[in-house]
Amino acid sequence: MTQPSSCSATPLMAALRGESSDRRCIWIMRQAGRYLPEYMAVRERVSFRDLCRTPELVCEVTLQPIQRFGLDAAILFSDILTPLEPMGAQFDFTDGGPRLARPLRSEADIAALQVIDPRQELAFVAEGIRLIKAALPTTPLLGFGGAPFTLAAYLIEGGGSQNYQQLKTLLFSRPELAEALLSKLADQVADHLLMQIEAGVDAVQIFDSWAGILSVADHERFALPYLQTIIDRLAPTRVPRILFTRGGLPYLDRLQATGAEVLALDWTMDLATVAARFPGQALQGNLDPLALFGSEAEIRRRAEAICRAGDTAAGHVFNLGHGILPETPIAAVETLVQTVQSYRPESA
Amino acid sequence: MTQPSSCSATPLMAALRGESSDRRCIWIMRQAGRYLPEYMAVRERVSFRDLCRTPELVCEVTLQPIQRFGLDAAILFSDILTPLEPMGAQFDFTDGGPRLARPLRSEADIAALQVIDPRQELAFVAEGIRLIKAALPTTPLLGFGGAPFTLAAYLIEGGGSQNYQQLKTLLFSRPELAEALLSKLADQVADHLLMQIEAGVDAVQIFDSWAGILSVADHERFALPYLQTIIDRLAPTRVPRILFTRGGLPYLDRLQATGAEVLALDWTMDLATVAARFPGQALQGNLDPLALFGSEAEIRRRAEAICRAGDTAAGHVFNLGHGILPETPIAAVETLVQTVQSYRPESA
Repeated sequence: MTQPSSCSATPLMAALRGESSDRRCIWIMRQAGRYLPEYMAVRERVSFRDLCRTPELVCEVTLQPIQRFGLDAAILFSDILTPLEPMGAQFDFTDGGPRLARPLRSEADIAALQVIDPRQELAFVAEGIRLIKAALPTTPLLGFGGAPFTLAAYLIEGGGSQNYQQLKTLLFSRPELAEALLSKLADQVADHLLMQIEAGVDAVQIFDSWAGILSVADHERFALPYLQTIIDRLAPTRVPRILFTRGGLPYLDRLQATGAEVLALDWTMDLATVAARFPGQALQGNLDPLALFGSEAEIRRRAEAICRAGDTAAGHVFNLGHGILPETPIAAVETLVQTVQSYRPESA
Repeated sequence: MTQPSSCSATPLMAALRGESSDRRCIWIMRQAGRYLPEYMAVRERVSFRDLCRTPELVCEVTLQPIQRFGLDAAILFSDILTPLEPMGAQFDFTDGGPRLARPLRSEADIAALQVIDPRQELAFVAEGIRLIKAALPTTPLLGFGGAPFTLAAYLIEGGGSQNYQQLKTLLFSRPELAEALLSKLADQVADHLLMQIEAGVDAVQIFDSWAGILSVADHERFALPYLQTIIDRLAPTRVPRILFTRGGLPYLDRLQATGAEVLALDWTMDLATVAARFPGQALQGNLDPLALFGSEAEIRRRAEAICRAGDTAAGHVFNLGHGILPETPIAAVETLVQTVQSYRPESA
């Protein structure tokens, strides 16, 4: 379906395909972001929303961490909520976390949400990808999307939440309504990711930030089938699919069974234990983002321990276990990238 | 060390000891709390802090949910932060969550924290226990304390936190300082629980609300040894020890190995899977507190599913997977208690 890109022979793409490599690759969730002074300089001129919708600026900030640190992959600068706006749910990003003025609560609210054609409504995303690929042809570029459950949580709560009371009240009293919303979101995210692949991304990551609030039975009903829809619809493209569920340990068997090429782990899971449990499975992760607030020696020690654990997996891509924090010192990121990229397996 | 109480033959105490019983017992984390109108009526007259320090009122609110719902155990009304005040850290409970005006950040701050004699400084807790036991002699009474890691998190962050940046910066850059604090807290919590046992509680629960933010290696260093200190110091009393770690799945093998009589599970863990993993281990839990916002039929269905999973454990005490929420409908609690207490194992 897609042409093999000039990145397919890179060590990062090999690791995503589950092939071992002498060189450990690293990218960082939210690597283009507020901890970077050059990103903040762009943000002085433009809002987060406008930045996401301006291909030239998307390209500029996507490249920033590659230029500064020599990371092994770029990830499209965007937001998991970006596709929701043309669907009819415009979030306000001005103050703290994203906020939706009228959260979805009723059957009519959910019915009013439109499945849109991303080629029409999200053309700026595809254009951003083309600009990045032209500027950075030999570095793998990752696309991404939010998992339906996490997107539904944002839509129903209207933003972040401590207890997800609105969301769970809907799940536990009108499950069929939740399922209608989740189906719509699964179709939309799959369409959006297919457009990103068509535009040139080399792999995609699906972010399920909030599914970790579910019991195993509820995850099986309200999260897994919609992830599976997306995984299955992307299968013909043969583009590696990375699946990240924060707090995903209770569901890991089932997540692994979706067929995603790569399971991305948060830092609470022991990487070597997961590698032993799923032979042949490529893994991504999983340094505590707060480790970057420790001493330089401690950053090196922890990064090396994760690389050693990664040696036991069929393919390991280094990453944090969650997004990098705005207060992270730049020097800590330099130490991390240098440590990971110079790591060599002991047996080699 | 303690006299067998008149409660030792109750089905709840049997379940805590890992003995099976025809009747499923239930108590609810935060069962004496803001969802109860009779509790709110008391709170109109007195602050949370003063309530915790007034034995007659502690007794009154501890009894409220027993009188209303006929729950199978009472739990002392108190706060995990109560012992910290005489140590030198007075939290402000007036607005939202607890706040410490001067969080602990330096060596001097940590050195200034005094280990105190609970018989002197927390005599009101023992007095509350004696009043409750006199008023309710045949219902088991649970004492409780915070886990050292969770208490340290409150002290260093000064309250709740999203990323625990201050705490982890200390752990990852000055671990020896964190360890000095954790040791002090472990001694203090053990002393406090021993006093509660002496005053008459029939079992104790240790709450580790926040240890789930740690990697397995960090949990092994910063949480587990201090839990073990407490577990070991309580061993001679032969009072059942219930260990609750929210998000504890990554560390469950190690938590089980502490020797705690009961592992309390949050709702993300599958109870039957945990029961199969640890034959002979008594378990407590684990309904999603938000299930109480669903329909009555759904509450019954979920409660029965957990009871059936509990049949496979060596002793099961029903509880929520975390504290009951203030907005919980009273009728939902009635449905839950009735469902659990009338449940009978299918084989019986």
